Amino acid sequence: MKRLSLDPTSALAQVRGNLIDIETENIAVLASRAAGIDDLIPLWYGEGDLVTPEPIRAAAQASLERGETFYVPQMEGRPDLAAALATYQSNLHGIDLGQDRSTVTPGGMQAVHLACSLMLEPGTNAVYVEPQWPNIRQSIQLAGAEPRAVALEMKDGDWQLDLDKVFDACDARTRAIIMSTPSNPCGWTASREIFEALIDFSRKTGVWIISDEVYSRLTGDGKAAPSLLQVAGPEDLALCINGFSKAWAMTGWRIGWLNHPASVAPVVRAMTQYVNSGTAAFVQAGAVAALEQGEPIVEQVRGRCRKGMDVAYEILGRSNRIRLPEKPKGGMYVFFSVEDQPDAHAFCSDMVTEAHVGLAPGGLFGEDFRGHVRMCIAREHTQIETACTRVLEALGG
Amino acid sequence: MKRLSLDPTSALAQVRGNLIDIETENIAVLASRAAGIDDLIPLWYGEGDLVTPEPIRAAAQASLERGETFYVPQMEGRPDLAAALATYQSNLHGIDLGQDRSTVTPGGMQAVHLACSLMLEPGTNAVYVEPQWPNIRQSIQLAGAEPRAVALEMKDGDWQLDLDKVFDACDARTRAIIMSTPSNPCGWTASREIFEALIDFSRKTGVWIISDEVYSRLTGDGKAAPSLLQVAGPEDLALCINGFSKAWAMTGWRIGWLNHPASVAPVVRAMTQYVNSGTAAFVQAGAVAALEQGEPIVEQVRGRCRKGMDVAYEILGRSNRIRLPEKPKGGMYVFFSVEDQPDAHAFCSDMVTEAHVGLAPGGLFGEDFRGHVRMCIAREHTQIETACTRVLEALGG
Repeated sequence: MKRLSLDPTSALAQVRGNLIDIETENIAVLASRAAGIDDLIPLWYGEGDLVTPEPIRAAAQASLERGETFYVPQMEGRPDLAAALATYQSNLHGIDLGQDRSTVTPGGMQAVHLACSLMLEPGTNAVYVEPQWPNIRQSIQLAGAEPRAVALEMKDGDWQLDLDKVFDACDARTRAIIMSTPSNPCGWTASREIFEALIDFSRKTGVWIISDEVYSRLTGDGKAAPSLLQVAGPEDLALCINGFSKAWAMTGWRIGWLNHPASVAPVVRAMTQYVNSGTAAFVQAGAVAALEQGEPIVEQVRGRCRKGMDVAYEILGRSNRIRLPEKPKGGMYVFFSVEDQPDAHAFCSDMVTEAHVGLAPGGLFGEDFRGHVRMCIAREHTQIETACTRVLEALGG
Repeated sequence: MKRLSLDPTSALAQVRGNLIDIETENIAVLASRAAGIDDLIPLWYGEGDLVTPEPIRAAAQASLERGETFYVPQMEGRPDLAAALATYQSNLHGIDLGQDRSTVTPGGMQAVHLACSLMLEPGTNAVYVEPQWPNIRQSIQLAGAEPRAVALEMKDGDWQLDLDKVFDACDARTRAIIMSTPSNPCGWTASREIFEALIDFSRKTGVWIISDEVYSRLTGDGKAAPSLLQVAGPEDLALCINGFSKAWAMTGWRIGWLNHPASVAPVVRAMTQYVNSGTAAFVQAGAVAALEQGEPIVEQVRGRCRKGMDVAYEILGRSNRIRLPEKPKGGMYVFFSVEDQPDAHAFCSDMVTEAHVGLAPGGLFGEDFRGHVRMCIAREHTQIETACTRVLEALGG
């Protein structure tokens, strides 16, 4: 973690205390150092190379053409999007989810921010599963709460969650347990049984369960990974983060949603009002098209991820210096470690200059994972092939 | 204020304490009650009737056409927008503002949220000028801080700010003084002298000055109202809220910006990352067009507001039951009171059903202003004429 240097005469000295420790060193900062390397293959972001397909872009363009440039007064989302979301999630998960259970947000990140803002405050803490997308930890800290990491364990070549460790990390000040499933970065996927145990714990303790399901559709088997929504009752303390970025190739659109109990809908929507007053009308029009016409797109993205994963495993697996876990059940990343690399930051730096491949160092996802590397494989498989081959060559075969 | 009713068995009972008091009764809720009144003239929102003009919409459509659907890694904004913003504000205010002084946000509201998040936390307070756009107070409360209102006073028929009252309201826990200028709802406009006194106070006390300048271009004289940026040094504790919504008729786009000292830029941009990870690339393309080609649009919107204001003053002024202050120097509202109406909520309700005119009750802008009514005049003047005539008729001429 990079700490901001503090000149006592600067305005920075007058921000609230816990913001001084906000993480300003992220993938974007790393990526900016690669400017000018023309043939760089950027596998550091959680983003593929697919431009958002036509039906979705066309819907937003048509919305602009129709002059849909006014406020959307409904903070839950445009009526057509709110209806489409309820239908989509109900069908996908085989449940009956009303429109009072979702609120549209400008990006999955804001769904995390609203979720954390709902119960976290100074004096509380949140337990989260590591390795983890760094923004989760930062979101907990932004709310003034203490983040407590519980690490997945590697057993029989696969990532496992020891729920007792999660529960042991909770105390009277714990207000939430947070995970991503399929996990960013490692693809670990919560089973229905895990959700059941978590909800059982929540009912006894009043601790919220927050499940980031942004990668839910990018699973190897079935149409979607198990969802917390399939297990939680309508008034259980359950929140699900979701977004259009990954499965519909809409990273740059900044639109997602939060599932919540119906009783907190007025609070979530009021917070949406006071955090940024909703999502652009024509962006929402694109999201409606994604839900109503987007299944072939989801299939295309998912196919790209599975093929990219296969190619990466095949090539990286040839190196005896690279340690690969079992192939992940979901997500869009390979999360591996390299022999004799206790801190992969230098390795990732070398890969930029030597192999022209952008990789994310594991330290971003948790201190215990500094020896790991995250590679996004959601691109055309020939690029993944080239990138992995270059990495192997740079490693000396 | 409407308090949420609390069923102890519902999930709502488990949100953090100060969210239970979040204001869920806003203009959108009022407006939703008018559904089905076909000829209703909606003057309750801060929004005109102009669809965002062609060059701006065309720029966003072209951006989508070019496939600009990926993350914008720069949290300060796309490079072309960051550059255009610095040029625009430097020229407008006759200052030299670098790109390290602005961060693009998804809407002016988020600029408020980030500004308040920068120094407010539980145990602190913020002093703000009333009457005020309700979202300012809510933003202070969302940050866990105590909001302290200081009311403008009516003197010689005009709104005046007594700075001594502002300073007297501050104590050791005060972290910010917040105002909108030109004011939403009443059009009061801070002079350069007021900004100088505020910055002087800030230098002595370490209290931040937050100036919401979203209506800056909608002023009666000159190209813009005075800006805090013209008075504050680069490392003074000064933040300016701004946005494209009002002056460029882009309410539904959700894009704005925050001006801040250069030293806090890394914190503001990290917060942007962790609150919602930036603004859609193609929305930013529209904003670039607004800055580079939008002056005729600003003139059009400003003209509409001045004409609307004149028409409203002319017609409402005929009633001896309506009390109008001096015509505001800026903004897009008439803020008036009605004889024998200590609480204008009932009056606004009546105007919906009897006159088919949507007005915002003053209580939303501060307890002391319950007898007032806010009318948005940023529409084609014939609509303002019809609306005001109907109001007069409903009042009995």
